[in-house]
Amino acid sequence: METVLVTGASGFIGRHCVRQLARRQLDVRCVSRRPWSAPGAACVQADLLDPVECREVFEQLRPRHLLHLAWYAEPGKFWTAPENFGWVRASLDVLESFRRNGGRRAVVAGTCAEYTWGDELCREMETPRNPATTYGVCKARLQELAHEYARIHDLDLAWGRVFFAYGPHEHPARLVASVARSLLRGETAECTHGRQVRDFLHVEDLAAAFVALLRSEVRGPVNLASGRATTIADVVNTLAKLAGNPGAVRLGARPAPVGEADRVVADVSRLRDEVGFRPRFRLAEGLADTLEFWRAELAKEAETCD
Amino acid sequence: METVLVTGASGFIGRHCVRQLARRQLDVRCVSRRPWSAPGAACVQADLLDPVECREVFEQLRPRHLLHLAWYAEPGKFWTAPENFGWVRASLDVLESFRRNGGRRAVVAGTCAEYTWGDELCREMETPRNPATTYGVCKARLQELAHEYARIHDLDLAWGRVFFAYGPHEHPARLVASVARSLLRGETAECTHGRQVRDFLHVEDLAAAFVALLRSEVRGPVNLASGRATTIADVVNTLAKLAGNPGAVRLGARPAPVGEADRVVADVSRLRDEVGFRPRFRLAEGLADTLEFWRAELAKEAETCD
Repeated sequence: METVLVTGASGFIGRHCVRQLARRQLDVRCVSRRPWSAPGAACVQADLLDPVECREVFEQLRPRHLLHLAWYAEPGKFWTAPENFGWVRASLDVLESFRRNGGRRAVVAGTCAEYTWGDELCREMETPRNPATTYGVCKARLQELAHEYARIHDLDLAWGRVFFAYGPHEHPARLVASVARSLLRGETAECTHGRQVRDFLHVEDLAAAFVALLRSEVRGPVNLASGRATTIADVVNTLAKLAGNPGAVRLGARPAPVGEADRVVADVSRLRDEVGFRPRFRLAEGLADTLEFWRAELAKEAETCD
Repeated sequence: METVLVTGASGFIGRHCVRQLARRQLDVRCVSRRPWSAPGAACVQADLLDPVECREVFEQLRPRHLLHLAWYAEPGKFWTAPENFGWVRASLDVLESFRRNGGRRAVVAGTCAEYTWGDELCREMETPRNPATTYGVCKARLQELAHEYARIHDLDLAWGRVFFAYGPHEHPARLVASVARSLLRGETAECTHGRQVRDFLHVEDLAAAFVALLRSEVRGPVNLASGRATTIADVVNTLAKLAGNPGAVRLGARPAPVGEADRVVADVSRLRDEVGFRPRFRLAEGLADTLEFWRAELAKEAETCD
């Protein structure tokens, strides 16, 4: 790989990808809407939702490889937000500008929300994709458009479907981060019933999977996940045990969202067999690492308040 | 209906829609990329592919109703053209600008190419939509995005799927126009085998169907078609008979395109029962009308050459 551009570089997944790409001594460029810098990477501030700024970024940087992660991701809001449509438009602009300026291989972030939830395993080529959410519809339809775009232009394109990522730098309002923070503060973590089965992946593994996919020659959709079915109860109880306070989780204290899926787990055979990637973290290790991060963050926050 | 804006107003379908809307004494506004004027309608020249121009059109005109027909339509090229992606982006911009500036009800032009061809009848809610062409992919995915967009914003949206339109002002390179012109010039019309079964609709009926759909309260996709299965051989033989030269068609003189569908016919129950629309022209009458038009056009062309 020569020049790699990462969009959404300051985001939860993006910052881990940038770090891993920079470690490999690649020529890493970042674009993000917020002011941002990362060691070993050249950063550009631009709003990709603006078609002119988007074009200028690619005319200026002319990356050969692209990791397009930028999207609207406000916790609690992104499922139904109108902003999703703007990101469909912007992502088509990104692909067009990338290709026109010498781009060769792109990996775009997709989501498990593209699938119709209910299958035992979500399989890239078989599971139907009639999503129930605006976010899912926009990502699923963009994937199909991007696939056709790549086909007619012979652009090398893969689509990494993200499942349930957790780990350092997660938004504090999201499940693992909020439970970890409550536990470390000595508070009781109030949760839903916890019987939902999900496919969790530590964000460093997810970033490594994105980088592996980008470096591979695999095209089309690939689930970026662990392939392991875990209940939310398992996750929060493990966190409580690791935090030294196994009784501090109250399952069933909050109602589960209406229409929430019972089970969302990935078939990872493409990732394992075609990309050749296996995750490094087991769940308990990943959660321990995450608690470490939040312990340090809370200490910093306490210092700031002093 | 108050103000109606028609995009693609100078196109084959657009000009017939504008005429029919203007006849109803509505406040009709047109937008087209080419300089264009139409009696009873106020016309604006703008390139909707330019996001700024697109926004300005809607800020200026503030239509309550919208008939969005504009798309890339170059005969022979539109099936596989990269321009289709630009029109996905532009159409999302059109819907956004329309809604933001007081728009209430929109009808967007879809296509029978959204369907997976092969079913006896293409049914709006049942026939799978995995199109084989770039044009079909872009229209199908845009329909799903537009549907979701309308749902979250409670925008009143219908989607008129066009089948095989013919009639006055058709592009001379398209089937009925080119055969009609050859016959009227006394030349032999060279055709494929002609066994392909299609659903033909006179463009005035198609325009009337668009107007009826726009005036109705029906939401979602509606096939705008005759519901009658006709072979291409029937069409060209009828044209030859009407032109007074029944022997002037050579079926099988040209190879049929690879992968061409055997049969594309619409289920028109939504159009008939929900919109309450029935076509006026039978096929023979519609073809006779089309020959009339081309006879007059060829006379004009001959004058110009004199």
